[in-house]
Amino acid sequence: MGQALDRDDIDIYLREVGLRDGLQNISTFFPTEAKKEWIAAEAAAGVTDIEVCSFVPPKLIPQFQDALDVVATAKKISGLNICALIPNLKGAERGIEAGVDQLNYVTSVSETHNLKNVRRTPQESVENFKEIVDFRDQRAEETGKKVTLLAGCATAFGCTLEGDINPKAVISIAKQFVAAGADEISLADTVGFANPGQIKSLCRQVMDELDIPITIHLHDTRGMGVVNAYAAYDAGIRRFDGCLGGLGGCPWAPGATGNVVMEDMAFMFEGMGLRTGIDIEKLCAVRDIVTRELPDESLSGGIAKAGMPVNFAQATPLAAAAE
Amino acid sequence: MGQALDRDDIDIYLREVGLRDGLQNISTFFPTEAKKEWIAAEAAAGVTDIEVCSFVPPKLIPQFQDALDVVATAKKISGLNICALIPNLKGAERGIEAGVDQLNYVTSVSETHNLKNVRRTPQESVENFKEIVDFRDQRAEETGKKVTLLAGCATAFGCTLEGDINPKAVISIAKQFVAAGADEISLADTVGFANPGQIKSLCRQVMDELDIPITIHLHDTRGMGVVNAYAAYDAGIRRFDGCLGGLGGCPWAPGATGNVVMEDMAFMFEGMGLRTGIDIEKLCAVRDIVTRELPDESLSGGIAKAGMPVNFAQATPLAAAAE
Repeated sequence: MGQALDRDDIDIYLREVGLRDGLQNISTFFPTEAKKEWIAAEAAAGVTDIEVCSFVPPKLIPQFQDALDVVATAKKISGLNICALIPNLKGAERGIEAGVDQLNYVTSVSETHNLKNVRRTPQESVENFKEIVDFRDQRAEETGKKVTLLAGCATAFGCTLEGDINPKAVISIAKQFVAAGADEISLADTVGFANPGQIKSLCRQVMDELDIPITIHLHDTRGMGVVNAYAAYDAGIRRFDGCLGGLGGCPWAPGATGNVVMEDMAFMFEGMGLRTGIDIEKLCAVRDIVTRELPDESLSGGIAKAGMPVNFAQATPLAAAAE
Repeated sequence: MGQALDRDDIDIYLREVGLRDGLQNISTFFPTEAKKEWIAAEAAAGVTDIEVCSFVPPKLIPQFQDALDVVATAKKISGLNICALIPNLKGAERGIEAGVDQLNYVTSVSETHNLKNVRRTPQESVENFKEIVDFRDQRAEETGKKVTLLAGCATAFGCTLEGDINPKAVISIAKQFVAAGADEISLADTVGFANPGQIKSLCRQVMDELDIPITIHLHDTRGMGVVNAYAAYDAGIRRFDGCLGGLGGCPWAPGATGNVVMEDMAFMFEGMGLRTGIDIEKLCAVRDIVTRELPDESLSGGIAKAGMPVNFAQATPLAAAAE
């Protein structure tokens, strides 16, 4: 498990994925120093888990050409769980050499989507994942540091190409990932099709079948991001991906919202008395870094625009969040 | 009861309040013919309940100077429950003469807020409501048409002036309204402070105490509009105020979102298999009227911007919605 996981002072883990899922479709290069500033500022606001980059070939996505440099600096922050997306074994090798705490490997449950994205069937992706597990285990024996593996089930709640996705297919892929050695599973509403009823139902089914932690990865494309996070919480989920300012809109749907807004989720959970470890006002202030570097992106989010309610009491003691 | 209430082909009542709560803070006069077009288009999309205006003195809010004209035209639409906001007995007289089906009278549970807004204590507002009930009853005897009275508890989930509002105070005002003769109570998160846990808790408490229908009136100021609607549904609420495009932002918080987005709520509930009577795509198309007349207002809402998921099946049969 990564350093930040399973802390007894935290009820809800909010994982920042903006530096990866938020930036991956943005062609403007986000300067390396600004990425480091963003990571440091979020960690200082109390965020426990950050996906800082993707170990894809720089030729494919130049945005992540500075992955090694970014990870090296992030590693200096004590207590932060540093995650990176990896598309394949080569990415896993690079990620582990870089020294991340967690690798995130994603497969689409939709065969059509997976074939289009990575030219493999979901089954072939699971086979590929097994090689990654073997490599991870071998490096753990050699170095004594066991990197955790998060295996993501994309399009778990629907697919733009296939439409409905059978929950049985999601459960099948998730179980294969667990059997192969995944430490954690994520369920992703990749295209923003899900409604809270569906989220609650599928999360419960998957939780009934697996006994490892499950993360939910939501997009706010159709305005359902926060409500789907709540429904997942209601089903028992305690780990959530989010994105500062809801970055990550679809490049071919101008104006469409992206990932679920990190700071709005923090506001919701803290208001409900659940400790995220995060100082919401400090988190909102981090938006300034993103706005400065990406002046043409319009950030989403209610709490940052409207400000905190008077008399609002965070569940996380703010002195603790400021540590 | 208004004409549209308690229909056996509807599970969730979404009441459009954009023509009142959406327009009341907008200084641009929305042309009378365009208001009529908006109402007709929403009714054609299947919306069952619309708050079409406010019977306030035109000198105070010129936006509603055409209230009589708007109501007269809306009355020609069969099956539509036509509601109007009223600040006092004089407003009730005008509304009943105009021929609305329902009057909406609002009191802030926060004494400070109510004094500032209408220069009365909440207690004095309840006394005022009793006069309105008497007048309504008298006119019902004379004309045979009994207008329904919706009594709203504003700032039920918090107040910018007083901060926390005691649930006991909300229940007390609601019970007094019912004792006075209210047909329906609404609970309003007037300033967008509420979180879903709080919504669920207070809705349940109020439902335990009252046996008349309860409507929830939500603002999306801090991004919690849709999730709070879901939490209210989870508590047993089946009536929701909403606003096309989330109109109704606060004039002193530029960029802040307004009322909860009507079309996103429709998308959520329909996706969950609950019939709203509404054709979502037709509802989204009504936004064009608002955009045409208010080109400087930026409309909120996910589903209208991103479009319907492929293979999405509405719970409401679309032929029925088109009737």
